[in-house]
Amino acid sequence: MKKLIILLLISSAFLWGQKRKTNYVIVIHGGAGTITHQRIFGEKQKEYEKKLTEALLTGKSVLEKGGTALDCVEKVINVLEDSPLFNAGKGAVFTGEGRNELDASIMNGKNLEAGAVAGVRHIKNPISLARLVMEKSPHVLLYGAGAEEFAKLQGINLVDTSYFFTQSRWDALMRIKQKEKMEAGDKHGTVGCVVLDGYGNLAAGTSTGGMTNKRWNRIGDSPIIGAGTYADNKSCAVSCTGHGEFFIRNAVAYDMTARMKYLHSSVTEAAKQIILHKLKKQGAAGGLIAVDKEGNIAMVFNTKGMFRGYLKKGSAPVVKMFGDDRSISNPRK
Amino acid sequence: MKKLIILLLISSAFLWGQKRKTNYVIVIHGGAGTITHQRIFGEKQKEYEKKLTEALLTGKSVLEKGGTALDCVEKVINVLEDSPLFNAGKGAVFTGEGRNELDASIMNGKNLEAGAVAGVRHIKNPISLARLVMEKSPHVLLYGAGAEEFAKLQGINLVDTSYFFTQSRWDALMRIKQKEKMEAGDKHGTVGCVVLDGYGNLAAGTSTGGMTNKRWNRIGDSPIIGAGTYADNKSCAVSCTGHGEFFIRNAVAYDMTARMKYLHSSVTEAAKQIILHKLKKQGAAGGLIAVDKEGNIAMVFNTKGMFRGYLKKGSAPVVKMFGDDRSISNPRK
Repeated sequence: MKKLIILLLISSAFLWGQKRKTNYVIVIHGGAGTITHQRIFGEKQKEYEKKLTEALLTGKSVLEKGGTALDCVEKVINVLEDSPLFNAGKGAVFTGEGRNELDASIMNGKNLEAGAVAGVRHIKNPISLARLVMEKSPHVLLYGAGAEEFAKLQGINLVDTSYFFTQSRWDALMRIKQKEKMEAGDKHGTVGCVVLDGYGNLAAGTSTGGMTNKRWNRIGDSPIIGAGTYADNKSCAVSCTGHGEFFIRNAVAYDMTARMKYLHSSVTEAAKQIILHKLKKQGAAGGLIAVDKEGNIAMVFNTKGMFRGYLKKGSAPVVKMFGDDRSISNPRK
Repeated sequence: MKKLIILLLISSAFLWGQKRKTNYVIVIHGGAGTITHQRIFGEKQKEYEKKLTEALLTGKSVLEKGGTALDCVEKVINVLEDSPLFNAGKGAVFTGEGRNELDASIMNGKNLEAGAVAGVRHIKNPISLARLVMEKSPHVLLYGAGAEEFAKLQGINLVDTSYFFTQSRWDALMRIKQKEKMEAGDKHGTVGCVVLDGYGNLAAGTSTGGMTNKRWNRIGDSPIIGAGTYADNKSCAVSCTGHGEFFIRNAVAYDMTARMKYLHSSVTEAAKQIILHKLKKQGAAGGLIAVDKEGNIAMVFNTKGMFRGYLKKGSAPVVKMFGDDRSISNPRK
C-alpha cells in the first residue's frame, strides 16, 4: 500500500512535470520594413491587427486540440498567405516580368526534417506544399514546374495565376518600374511563424512572394533552410524577413542556432547580435522571430517596424508593428 | 641618410612579412562515394590522377601569376567541369526525365559575396556563371531559364543540351531506372575547390550535375551558400559533396565556420565532428574539403573514398582517392 502511494506520488510529479512542458508559444511576423505611424494608422492598422490576431488564434486552436508545432506553423501561415495584406500567397508581389513566383520552407526541430519550394506559380499555399516536400519526397528543395508536378501527384489543386493578382502589388511594380526605386512596403512583407508546442517540440516556417521586380528566377532566403528558416529542438526555431541576399550570405537562421549551441547565447542575445550588429553593419535591412525550447522569444529588426505578434498559453494574443515599442514585456496591442 | 636606411629596413621587413603570407594552398575534390581499389585501378585510376593533377596545376598557374583565390577556384573547377570523369559540366548525371540540370555556387571569403545558379541546362561552365551572378547581379541565387537569360545578357554562349550527353551517365540512369537502385559512383561526383591565395584571402566553389534520376527540379546543397559552399576569411573556405538533402538540413558549410569561430575548433576537428560524427549518425554519406586562413587543410569523408588533392606553394601536387590513405601528411600520389 505504501509502495502504491509512493508510486502515485511519483507519477503525479511526473505528470505535473509533463504538464509544465505544455506551455506552448506561437510567434509570427508579416515582414519588416518602413512600417511607421505616418504610413499605417486608423482602418489600415486595424486590418493588420485583426489579421495577425486571427493567425495567432488559429494557431492556438491547432495546439489546444493537440496539434503539433508543425501543424501550427502550417495553419498559421495559411491564414497569412490567404490575406492580400502580406507578401505571400494571395498578396505576393510581382516579378519584373509581371508574374508571381512564390517561395516557402518549413522545418521540424524534432528531427531536422525540412521541405521547401521556390518559384512556384500555381500554388495557393506554398507552405503546405513545402510540408509535402518534407513528408512525401526524398528531397528538401524543389523548384517551379517540377515542384508543381510533384504537387499534382500529391493531389494539390493548382490555381490559375490570376488568383495572385492584387491591384496594390501591381501598382507597386509599376511604381518601381517607372522610378526604379522602392517604396516602403514594396520590397518586403514575407510572413513567418515559429512555434514551441505542447510536446516540447519546435518548428519554423516562412512564405513569401520575394522581392518586387525581381528578375531571372531569383531565389531569396525564404526557401533556403539555414538562411530564412531553421528549427532544432536543441536550440531554437527561426523565421527571417528582409533583404534575402544578405540573409543567405550570412546563413542567418542557422547562425541563430549555432550561437545558442556553441556560444550559449540566449535567443535574444543571438538575434540582437545578428540583426542589430552584424547585418546592420553590412547595410542589410530585416528582422527575425525566434523561440527557444524554454519558450523564450525574440522579435528583433533593424528597420522602422515589423508586423509581429505572439501568443503564450493562457494569455491573450499580443500584436505589434511599429519600432517605438520593441519591448516584448510591454505589449502594445 | 640614416633615416633612409631605417626606412628601407622597415620596408624590407614589411615586404618579407607580406611575402610570408603568400604561401598559397589549393584543395580540390571530385566527389565522395564507393571509390575502392576494386573499382578504380590501372588506366582508369591514372585518368583520374591525371585530371586532378591538371586541375591543381591550373590553379597553381593562376596564383603564380598573381590571381586571386576567386580566380583560382573558378579556373580549377572549369577543368573538372570540362572533364567527363566528374559529375559536373560535361560529365553531369541525368535527371529522371533524361535531362541535365546543373548547379554551382562560389563565395569570396574576403567580403562574404556569393553567387549561385541552379537548374541550368545550357551552361558549359556553371561555376563561371555563378561568379557572374555574384559580380554582375544584385542577387545570390538564380534558377534555370532566368539564370540563362542573365547569362545571355552577360555575353555567355549557351550550349546545346547535347553537349552534356555522356554514354556512361546515360547508362547509369538506365540502370537506376531498371533496378531503382544506385550503383557506386552513380549518385555523387560533385566537384569543388577551396583556396587560400597569396593575399591571405579565402574562396570556395562547388559545381555539380546533382543526383542521377532526380525529379521535380530538385535542388541539392551545391548551389546553396551555407550548405554546400561557404567562405569567410575569419574562419575557413569549405566545399561539400554527398547526399545533398542532409547537407542542407545540417547547414554543413556554414557549420564548419561556426564551429571554428565560436568553438575555436581547428579546421580538421570541425570537419571530423560534422562528417564522421553528426552526419554519419544520421546515415548521411559524403565529405568535405576546407582550408583555413593559416593554410591548414581538411579532406574528410565518411564514404569508402573521395577524389581529392591539394597543392601547397613550393610543393608538388598531391592526389588521392581511396579511403585507406586518409592522412594528409602521408600522401599517396
